[in-house]
Amino acid sequence: MNDPLRNEYDVVGRPTPKKDGILKALGRAEYADDISMPGMLHGKLLRSPHPHARIVRIDISRAQALPGVRAVVTGKDFPGVKYGNLPQTRDYLPLAIDTVRYIGEEVAAVAAIDEDTAEEALDLIEVEYEPLAAVFDPEQAMLPGAPLVHDNATANVSAQVAFEFGEVDKAFSRADYVREDVYETQPVKQGMLEPHACVGQWDNSGKITLWSCKMSPYVVWRQLAMGLGVELGSVRVVQTVVGGGFSGGKQEAMPMDFCAVMLSRKTGRPVKIVHTMDEVLTIGHMRHPMKISLRTGTDKNGRILAQHCKMIANGGAYSSIGGFSMYLAGAMLNIPYRIPNIRYEAKRVYTNNGFCGALRGHTNTQICFARDSQLELIAADLGVDPIEIRHRNALQPGDETSNGFRIGTFAFDECIDRVVQLSGWREKRGKLPKYRGIGFGCGSHISGARLMGHSASAAEIRVQEDGTVHLSTGSTDVGQGADTVLSMIAAEVLGVEVNDVRFALVDSDSTPVDPGTFGSRVTFFTGNAVKRAAEDARRQLAEIAGQRMKANPDDLVFRGREIISRRDDRQRMSLKDAVRWGAFQTGRLVISHGTYAAGDEKIDFRTGHGNLSPAYNPSACAVEVEVDPETGQVKVVGFWGADDSGFPLNPLAVKGQVIGATVMSFGHALYETLVRIDGKVMNPSFRDYKMPLTTDVPKLTDFQHSNVITWEPEGPFGAKEAGQGAGTGVIAALANAIYDATGVRLNSLPLSPDRIRFAIKQKYETERAGKESPVAAE
Amino acid sequence: MNDPLRNEYDVVGRPTPKKDGILKALGRAEYADDISMPGMLHGKLLRSPHPHARIVRIDISRAQALPGVRAVVTGKDFPGVKYGNLPQTRDYLPLAIDTVRYIGEEVAAVAAIDEDTAEEALDLIEVEYEPLAAVFDPEQAMLPGAPLVHDNATANVSAQVAFEFGEVDKAFSRADYVREDVYETQPVKQGMLEPHACVGQWDNSGKITLWSCKMSPYVVWRQLAMGLGVELGSVRVVQTVVGGGFSGGKQEAMPMDFCAVMLSRKTGRPVKIVHTMDEVLTIGHMRHPMKISLRTGTDKNGRILAQHCKMIANGGAYSSIGGFSMYLAGAMLNIPYRIPNIRYEAKRVYTNNGFCGALRGHTNTQICFARDSQLELIAADLGVDPIEIRHRNALQPGDETSNGFRIGTFAFDECIDRVVQLSGWREKRGKLPKYRGIGFGCGSHISGARLMGHSASAAEIRVQEDGTVHLSTGSTDVGQGADTVLSMIAAEVLGVEVNDVRFALVDSDSTPVDPGTFGSRVTFFTGNAVKRAAEDARRQLAEIAGQRMKANPDDLVFRGREIISRRDDRQRMSLKDAVRWGAFQTGRLVISHGTYAAGDEKIDFRTGHGNLSPAYNPSACAVEVEVDPETGQVKVVGFWGADDSGFPLNPLAVKGQVIGATVMSFGHALYETLVRIDGKVMNPSFRDYKMPLTTDVPKLTDFQHSNVITWEPEGPFGAKEAGQGAGTGVIAALANAIYDATGVRLNSLPLSPDRIRFAIKQKYETERAGKESPVAAE
Repeated sequence: MNDPLRNEYDVVGRPTPKKDGILKALGRAEYADDISMPGMLHGKLLRSPHPHARIVRIDISRAQALPGVRAVVTGKDFPGVKYGNLPQTRDYLPLAIDTVRYIGEEVAAVAAIDEDTAEEALDLIEVEYEPLAAVFDPEQAMLPGAPLVHDNATANVSAQVAFEFGEVDKAFSRADYVREDVYETQPVKQGMLEPHACVGQWDNSGKITLWSCKMSPYVVWRQLAMGLGVELGSVRVVQTVVGGGFSGGKQEAMPMDFCAVMLSRKTGRPVKIVHTMDEVLTIGHMRHPMKISLRTGTDKNGRILAQHCKMIANGGAYSSIGGFSMYLAGAMLNIPYRIPNIRYEAKRVYTNNGFCGALRGHTNTQICFARDSQLELIAADLGVDPIEIRHRNALQPGDETSNGFRIGTFAFDECIDRVVQLSGWREKRGKLPKYRGIGFGCGSHISGARLMGHSASAAEIRVQEDGTVHLSTGSTDVGQGADTVLSMIAAEVLGVEVNDVRFALVDSDSTPVDPGTFGSRVTFFTGNAVKRAAEDARRQLAEIAGQRMKANPDDLVFRGREIISRRDDRQRMSLKDAVRWGAFQTGRLVISHGTYAAGDEKIDFRTGHGNLSPAYNPSACAVEVEVDPETGQVKVVGFWGADDSGFPLNPLAVKGQVIGATVMSFGHALYETLVRIDGKVMNPSFRDYKMPLTTDVPKLTDFQHSNVITWEPEGPFGAKEAGQGAGTGVIAALANAIYDATGVRLNSLPLSPDRIRFAIKQKYETERAGKESPVAAE
Repeated sequence: MNDPLRNEYDVVGRPTPKKDGILKALGRAEYADDISMPGMLHGKLLRSPHPHARIVRIDISRAQALPGVRAVVTGKDFPGVKYGNLPQTRDYLPLAIDTVRYIGEEVAAVAAIDEDTAEEALDLIEVEYEPLAAVFDPEQAMLPGAPLVHDNATANVSAQVAFEFGEVDKAFSRADYVREDVYETQPVKQGMLEPHACVGQWDNSGKITLWSCKMSPYVVWRQLAMGLGVELGSVRVVQTVVGGGFSGGKQEAMPMDFCAVMLSRKTGRPVKIVHTMDEVLTIGHMRHPMKISLRTGTDKNGRILAQHCKMIANGGAYSSIGGFSMYLAGAMLNIPYRIPNIRYEAKRVYTNNGFCGALRGHTNTQICFARDSQLELIAADLGVDPIEIRHRNALQPGDETSNGFRIGTFAFDECIDRVVQLSGWREKRGKLPKYRGIGFGCGSHISGARLMGHSASAAEIRVQEDGTVHLSTGSTDVGQGADTVLSMIAAEVLGVEVNDVRFALVDSDSTPVDPGTFGSRVTFFTGNAVKRAAEDARRQLAEIAGQRMKANPDDLVFRGREIISRRDDRQRMSLKDAVRWGAFQTGRLVISHGTYAAGDEKIDFRTGHGNLSPAYNPSACAVEVEVDPETGQVKVVGFWGADDSGFPLNPLAVKGQVIGATVMSFGHALYETLVRIDGKVMNPSFRDYKMPLTTDVPKLTDFQHSNVITWEPEGPFGAKEAGQGAGTGVIAALANAIYDATGVRLNSLPLSPDRIRFAIKQKYETERAGKESPVAAE
């Protein structure tokens, strides 16, 4: 076994620049919108201007007659099969047929010789709507008599998850201390710079090909076949370079995908559709806005005895993966703290808004914001040090949580201590100048999930005659560095350089099926699959080389692109010579496959019980802020984080992921919100939808992050997740820091200047009126 | 084991239409010339007008300055590495550097915005040549003082093969009868309707991609890397639909391929080059013109005791695979007759003509023409029945030939008898009206060759979740039906329908490496690889289904897209459910590989000894002709053939191949010749280069062909080769038929009207002068 402090590996564990970095930096990476094909048409989608309406009639004749228009499709061109992730949540149609349920829902699509003509044709499509009463607020949506978004969803409940572990009522009755707080979060978007884009082709042989920037091409593959009513074998999904997806943004098949291929079928030509940023920010895959009511009971020392969480999520008009989102939020109550008794009641509610799904950290982020905000209040009330209360409740390796998570490596205590030390917490907390404050927050995440459907990873390796290694999986690089870390794993096993490994984009006709990139699964699940594939390739190569060198394959080691006898290192041959000799002499191919399914255990979603992930990653962080009391503006002046990502395979990428997740949480906490009035997004552009800019965050070199290295025995070379967990504790840390700086505590996101200024003003006035307790704004 | 007369199989052995037939019939198949890419440029090649010259200077400045021209390349843009098949025959350069060696040799290439501009730019390239003495006839080329085509080839010998098996001189001295004849053959071309075409791209990441209609994409892959001086992994060859190749026409990398990718490198844009038919018929890959001197000794009953064959081949200016061609011609002396003592001396000679390579039947065709023409004369001289002399000399199963061929299944006697019976030989021979005649001819061929380099086949099968089977190999369908027969093999093993199998075009980035289509290897070599891959996929599926159905995998049978328990046929699951269950439950992929190398035995090319092929296919045929003595025109009025292709997997395709090979031999025998004057092809168009038209041959229904079915234990489901062997005996049969009809015997191809008329006239005049022996024309 490797000593992580003295890395014995040649490739893994060493900071390695992203393989495609140079291509991207030079502007030479080719995105979906860069695709051009001869005869290619350009498509545009007509969207509903109503949040809820019946479609009485669609007349496409004027649009069809416009010179340059080649085809128009409506919902009736599709077989009318609803698609989606799970049987119970299939509520999407490629295009609306009878009813539209949110402003921006797709009603028709046009293919024309250029974008302008397509755009113009949209105006010529006459749709007669009969507006229906709409509902935007989930609590109102559940009231009797509220308009129904989907006829079959009683009280508009799209998904309902409830479970109880332990004896919650008994535990609360034993508690020395109980408090309940309500937290609210807002709708935010991934904000990826590359909009959704695709090219669809339905060719002469009946093959349907979609080129698109998908994080999970095989999910799209299944959904396309489902919604088009064709066999999977007729569909081919080819992944293009993904310009950001951020867990959930580019996961599923979308109306644009269906329309591109259907317009191609009608025209016999490839059809490209690219969304505008307006469309991206309007239609869906937002983070679920939640109202979280969290009641917590502790003993007098702050040890948590029970938590009862009630949550209502605004799901918008469609399900996406919202059913799983609800399960996940409840499951995440179980980490990173020991909570022996948990009751969880969640409802995801349909409203006439754009639909919600996953976004980096998924629903875990919202739960962590609520829990670590409240924990700070509990510590204060009980007079326990805020660091100490976290230690007292920290899950330990070997624990099994009340919902059945089996905690393996879990250096949570060490992460907390590391951050305390890095940040100078003891010297700062309560001792900083006025309007300057420091706050602490913790989080955790899974390393991939065992889901009901297809959750296993697969990889294929072909060692070529020039000694290069062709690596393909159905998982994708979406900028997070999968191309590099997976190549590193293969290179380590086969004794070659990272750049000897070619990492393929997914093509469902040739790459092995794998559900793709989400749930922090790639390094762990696909990494294990790649490792197994590489080990099998190494075994095959050792057999060939053993035959050629008349050596025992078990005596051969792989290093420096060579296969060397352990017994006599003059006995050696290059990898490429071995492949070539095998091919020429005996026709052997060095092609191998590896799969990883983390056992065949699955979560029981009815009871919520089961070990969701093969490994869990705790994290802690502190942020220091400076608040301008006049404007309410928050400036982040310092960040210190630590997490246990197991053995970081590519420390450079782990750092990038941690900073990325952190800055996204800055945005979520401080700036971002989709402002919606009667279902209409009022700020669908990056001018109005504020994301953190480099000028809003500390300099890159001022982000201090440390990996507490454990060795996860189930992970590939000891690795665990790194891309999402690190961001989960950041929002609470910011809320806590703002409180430390100003004495005001906001339970509602975003912690925006107007709200902070209002709360400071209110606090000042309350204090002037002789009162002293802090005030919760809104 | 299957009883071939009562086919127990569901798929193989049944006449099956070609899978891509409909696409081709509808004009929807996409050929290389159908490719269009955004920004694509069009390339043209400048060719030498001299048969032999030194290049003094090339000035491309005027061409470069022409509006619309984007790049010009010359030989100096390439690294100067010669490429080719075998180390000893690497004499090609991507573009000529110092010397041109034939009229049509590539000197420079242009990429422009359209073909006209590129063509115009060619005229603006100024090349100063210093003409050198040239030589066109191989015998003159070997004379002392002849100009040297390549400085390092003494006496212009490009390849020399000589071997002796048995004791030839002793056998001749024992012989009762000896005769020697000289036969000459002409240069002919494949005459494929699709000219060579390619699109080359050298992309931003340094990846070099060539889309082209290649029969052997992996041969091209190796040669491109070699000639460009890059690693194999940088090169990707993607096969487009092949519009005819006929063994040798589209085997190798050509200057157009190198120029397309190099022009792309210079311009950053894809570049298409398509040859004109003029270019196709001028530059190379012709069938070797040969002068074959055949001396044969027999006993008094016509049993052959020894043969001594001296052969001189006109190789043209470059080697191509001419070295192997020379070996093959000699090796083919050993089948289908028992010849215990053989001496073979062959020289392939460089001349200043377009270069020669392989063409359907390869050099076997020429040898068969000579041998079965001469055999007829021997029979006549000895008074032995021409059928009987063939029986007396026929190789038998279990024989080992003098050069080490191990003869397995070999129903040669049955083929002869079948043709005698089908054709009504006994009723016709010598009994037909004047100027009508019937002739007999025999041949044989290999089922793939064990070569020195890479000769093993490989296949990959992926069974998809919809139950379809994705089959890929590095072998290609070139119209011969590989797509169908290989799919049939996979379908038979997996219990699915032929159309459930998707047969992929080769893409060197994803298909398994396999040398491709030549030497009648595909059904046998790749078929075996496919069968093994399918068997492995079936094993994997049985494991999955066994786990799911709690059954012993050995008890499961595959039929009708289902997996069924032998013990209880209510216990069954569909193939697609098995794949899906495996993927979802345990992450298993059903991906398998199969390879076939026919053992690791290789031919010793120095001695010529060794068992070239795992199986041999004998054939016999009779043709009936009517000759117009006034014009010399020959009309084929009947054809009867029989061959032993083992168990014909797709009888429809076998029939197509036999008719195709036969008609090509009609062309070779009667019509075709490239007329060359001082190295210049005078008839480079299908108007002037006459190939047989449908009006020239019997109606399709009048071709009577029968398979003598054997069961080749080494072949996939008992199959052997079918595409080339059947044509090898046809030319001699025609020559013999013309003799039977007219009494004139021509030893020189083509047996064209002018020659026949001249010979008839000469015979008439000779007879009038009171002489009686037949006259050899020319």
